[in-house]
Amino acid sequence: MTRQLYELCGADPARIFSPYCWRSRLALAHKGLSFESIPWRFTETARLAFAKHDKVPVLVDGAAVVVDSWTIAQHLDDAHPEGPSLLHGRPETYRFIAHWTDSVVSAGIARMIVSDIPALLDPVAQAYFVASREKRYGRKLAEMTADRDAFVLEFRRNLYPLRRTVEAQPFLGGAEPDYADHIVFGSFMWARVTSRFTLLAEDDAVAGWVERMLDLYGGMARATPAA
Amino acid sequence: MTRQLYELCGADPARIFSPYCWRSRLALAHKGLSFESIPWRFTETARLAFAKHDKVPVLVDGAAVVVDSWTIAQHLDDAHPEGPSLLHGRPETYRFIAHWTDSVVSAGIARMIVSDIPALLDPVAQAYFVASREKRYGRKLAEMTADRDAFVLEFRRNLYPLRRTVEAQPFLGGAEPDYADHIVFGSFMWARVTSRFTLLAEDDAVAGWVERMLDLYGGMARATPAA
Repeated sequence: MTRQLYELCGADPARIFSPYCWRSRLALAHKGLSFESIPWRFTETARLAFAKHDKVPVLVDGAAVVVDSWTIAQHLDDAHPEGPSLLHGRPETYRFIAHWTDSVVSAGIARMIVSDIPALLDPVAQAYFVASREKRYGRKLAEMTADRDAFVLEFRRNLYPLRRTVEAQPFLGGAEPDYADHIVFGSFMWARVTSRFTLLAEDDAVAGWVERMLDLYGGMARATPAA
Repeated sequence: MTRQLYELCGADPARIFSPYCWRSRLALAHKGLSFESIPWRFTETARLAFAKHDKVPVLVDGAAVVVDSWTIAQHLDDAHPEGPSLLHGRPETYRFIAHWTDSVVSAGIARMIVSDIPALLDPVAQAYFVASREKRYGRKLAEMTADRDAFVLEFRRNLYPLRRTVEAQPFLGGAEPDYADHIVFGSFMWARVTSRFTLLAEDDAVAGWVERMLDLYGGMARATPAA
């Protein structure tokens, strides 16, 4: 049975943009596991009924159906111990950086790119996305990102712990990447695929790390169409 | 030869308050290694000449003289592999949380407690501390902490990744603490020993984690006099 990863994409199925789907596809590539990408779009919850879940990523790996990027990473290490490790037998250690990423990196990126996302989507997904996000945030998407030229400076300051770490070593994992890198970089791919807004100064060590991540696994992330 | 840890203290040698010294003393306790605490005070650099260094912590462990808390943690795992692990053979993984702690936890705590530190010190150390910190920050210590009642709310929000992690598991290390816990908790001990200012709301999960840390290793941290 072919391994399959259900992934959120734009109208163009090559434009995979969910940060959580990126965590899982980078994790699969890290383990050296091939997979078929199954495009999935907002509102297509019926297509995930087999997984008893309503969100992607969903991984079908032989007889296993695994939902949630965190659980997928643990499954990949458990079911495929022969590949390079993602979590080094200590998933608890990676919880902190996942919460830092969600609250600092992803929340910060949302404030700068969310208004660029609708242009990527087909009309049905677009209508769902705009209505659900405007309800969640309590204002228009364009208002969310209106101050992004000022906010980006605060965002860059907030990346200090990431910057200092990748100044001292090539990856968060050390000399080689691990799931910590996949977690954080997934958010940068979300921005890269959906928006042309410049997040990082060229001379930022974080930008150098992004380039290294784009090169990994045969340039998988770099080959994905950017906005 | 007795194992010795040179540690920054107040006029009272029991009032050990440097966050970096706390990292090392918690690491020693975690490994189950006994040590003699050697009180050290600001300006006593001549007493560290044997270590070719001018700051504490300094660890004397048999023939080894080890400076810098980061190097001490690695030394303890390498030289004493029989004790519980601090870094699980992956020190690179702990760099990120060290930089997060320095920039978010310690920098935030400094803005709330630095003006309380001089009262802890003997006159010589006090004069040095006030002059050097006012030069570093470019203003009076009392001005640094003047807005702390407002700033503490921002500080608590910034602890979000720590809070979410210790809501899901007892320690940053998982079911048991590891050096990630020592890194972050060192800063909370710095505040506890030097200031009566309340950092955390009582119902904050971070406060529950602080209580668990105070109980570890026979209540070593709890037994240290608080401000």
